Amino acid sequence: STLNAARAEARPAGRRAPAVAAVLPAGGSGERMGVPTPKQFCPVLERPLISYTLQALERVCWIKDIVVAVTGENMEAMKGIIQKYQHQRISLVEAGVTRHRSIFNGLKALAEDQPDSKLSKPEVVIIHDAVRPFVEEDVLLKVVTAAKEYGAAGAIRPLVSTVISPSADGCLDHSLERARHRASEMPQAFLFDVIYEAYQQCSDYDLEFGTECLQLALKYGHIKAKLVEGSPDLWKVTYKRDLYAAESIIKERISQHICLIMDTKDENHVGHRLEEVLKDELNHVKVTSRLPCHTGRDLDQIVSEQCYSYVCVNVMTSDFEEIRKLVNMLEESNLSILYPVVVISVYFLDYKSVPFDQKMENLMQIREYAKEVKKRNILLCGLLIYYPQDEQKLQESLRQGATIIATLIKERNSGLVGQLLVA
Amino acid sequence: STLNAARAEARPAGRRAPAVAAVLPAGGSGERMGVPTPKQFCPVLERPLISYTLQALERVCWIKDIVVAVTGENMEAMKGIIQKYQHQRISLVEAGVTRHRSIFNGLKALAEDQPDSKLSKPEVVIIHDAVRPFVEEDVLLKVVTAAKEYGAAGAIRPLVSTVISPSADGCLDHSLERARHRASEMPQAFLFDVIYEAYQQCSDYDLEFGTECLQLALKYGHIKAKLVEGSPDLWKVTYKRDLYAAESIIKERISQHICLIMDTKDENHVGHRLEEVLKDELNHVKVTSRLPCHTGRDLDQIVSEQCYSYVCVNVMTSDFEEIRKLVNMLEESNLSILYPVVVISVYFLDYKSVPFDQKMENLMQIREYAKEVKKRNILLCGLLIYYPQDEQKLQESLRQGATIIATLIKERNSGLVGQLLVA
Ligand SMILES: [Mg+2]
Ligand SMILES: [Mg+2]
Repeated sequence: STLNAARAEARPAGRRAPAVAAVLPAGGSGERMGVPTPKQFCPVLERPLISYTLQALERVCWIKDIVVAVTGENMEAMKGIIQKYQHQRISLVEAGVTRHRSIFNGLKALAEDQPDSKLSKPEVVIIHDAVRPFVEEDVLLKVVTAAKEYGAAGAIRPLVSTVISPSADGCLDHSLERARHRASEMPQAFLFDVIYEAYQQCSDYDLEFGTECLQLALKYGHIKAKLVEGSPDLWKVTYKRDLYAAESIIKERISQHICLIMDTKDENHVGHRLEEVLKDELNHVKVTSRLPCHTGRDLDQIVSEQCYSYVCVNVMTSDFEEIRKLVNMLEESNLSILYPVVVISVYFLDYKSVPFDQKMENLMQIREYAKEVKKRNILLCGLLIYYPQDEQKLQESLRQGATIIATLIKERNSGLVGQLLVA
Repeated sequence: STLNAARAEARPAGRRAPAVAAVLPAGGSGERMGVPTPKQFCPVLERPLISYTLQALERVCWIKDIVVAVTGENMEAMKGIIQKYQHQRISLVEAGVTRHRSIFNGLKALAEDQPDSKLSKPEVVIIHDAVRPFVEEDVLLKVVTAAKEYGAAGAIRPLVSTVISPSADGCLDHSLERARHRASEMPQAFLFDVIYEAYQQCSDYDLEFGTECLQLALKYGHIKAKLVEGSPDLWKVTYKRDLYAAESIIKERISQHICLIMDTKDENHVGHRLEEVLKDELNHVKVTSRLPCHTGRDLDQIVSEQCYSYVCVNVMTSDFEEIRKLVNMLEESNLSILYPVVVISVYFLDYKSVPFDQKMENLMQIREYAKEVKKRNILLCGLLIYYPQDEQKLQESLRQGATIIATLIKERNSGLVGQLLVA
């Protein structure tokens, strides 16, 4: 298929694709963040940060094994994360007391010379951080390809701040020329034998105080690592503000596609006007619409496009039948395992002419149902759009409806689940 | 008074407090962020980032003048910002084509030797960035005090990434020892004569390509700047993710205090139980409660404590009288000029026994009123809390009410203004 061809192309270049594994040191404590939880286990949209990083690595099909080094006290929690979020190709090893010792433990598990190792020795090993969840296949491919050629490679970024060297008395000795220096980031990649031998040779001092794997390859393997320009997304989640940034980035990414399910074919119906207003309000978001009778057939495709936002426009009914069908399909798809899925059920109502009580009482049932589906990470809300005769007022209602839909999708907050909002 | 004494203590130490001014280069373009708007003008909670930085400087009473360098094309926008957010002690100068030329223009405006200058020459000048909004008085005092003693001083931070030096062919030449280097951040401070003379002497090359004022003071003034450890909050808003982080930090800061206004003295009333549940849900937030008859007297104090979140608990009525009084007082206080103020009007209702229609129709008027007060940056929502006889169900309602209140305060999103939420 085309997809497989694209994947094959994305494999590391060369006559023969090298066997690639990844090592992820995740033994660090959270001291820099000022929080008790180590940052790789901090929740982002209620899922631990490290799970996003694992997801980023495991979706790269040519990474055969992912070895994660965690401390004994976090081992059970890590197993729980792997099970809950259905991560694949993960092996766990015990972390060492420093980052370098953790990496070394990961490499030992991959080396065939260890008696208890079930993993096979890769040609190239990627070293990445558990707290850099936004790594793309592109840069992984670049460092692996360069490692195959040069023996070692690492991602770099321009410096954001000027780097200075202080004198012993806490004054400026000199500042470094910014153009001649770079920040060394992750991922890095190495020929396995190069980095494994470097670790076997290196001193206790290196294992305790060294910070840079590229420097070890240089010092012990005499390998000058190839430097690869990375994107800003490679940044390391270090402070509390970085967790905020990560959450906002993830929320934004999963809100780029909205699927509208419309229970009428009538092109002149107000539901289609809502679609136009919504496209206008969210002009950088992809909005696709479906008829509910087609939903079953199309949902596989929509799910495979990673759509996490659904708006059900109920023109013909004021019940939850269409919503129940959609929610059942979403549950079967496992889509909400990784991200909260927003579902908004829209009804049109002229609350000045239609008897208010009965319809409302019907719709108020959404609260109980929403509480139920929230357990499966599906965030359901209702939206009543006022439908007046007056054209200008209708346009205003639709616009406010679109604003509410945009807010619910953007914020993706579980605190408002089950509400019946009014536009 | 105690407050004045505390302020006096916070002035730069020494027999005589030096006259201090600040220069803020704000001429940069937004290229690094990948957005068309220069980052200092990007909205954070709908207010331009630079306004937060001006606020941080102007609340330090011993900074006499703040000189902002902006490009000609942004001059009118900047004047608008100063007016809208009522900034004080600001002078505008034209930015140069580089950061250094902008700073130099700011210094020229402060130097008494310029014929058209209306400002008086300070003893010490602070140089700060428009895109570092979280600067605290503490670090400003430290750099000013050190500048008075050493001639120059600047804030530094530990390096987050290892810094490396690439060779000409794009490979690793060597990596720098992390412990021996620091990131140079802002603010910096200088004896005015030292930095002004350095700028007057320095070459066109320095003005075009130099990045570090401390280095200029060293090169031309032979001044070894004192380095001062800064907090993580000094970081520079550089990428889009930094804007996300800034918005989250600001939202969190203005949500640390909730004022509950309760229309009953009855300590056994369910309103007081809501207070307990809310304190339990938001255990790091200060929750204070007031009676409405005392609100007028107390509001000055609450406003001076920078409380941006109000919950009006209406036990006795289902009208908006108390809310209107509160909103009027808030408007008079000008509290919402700088930050959106959240007001939540809470009502208790047994919707199974009380006639639904009339109360609802009353309460639905909140939508129109909320639209009105939103223009003054006050975000008003209604919350109906279901009040069943069953003790366990009541506890559940209160807990859900507290969750909704917490969500509205935390998200502070204008898209849900005027909604009547149900717990
Ligand atoms: Mg390293
Ligand atoms: Mg500088």
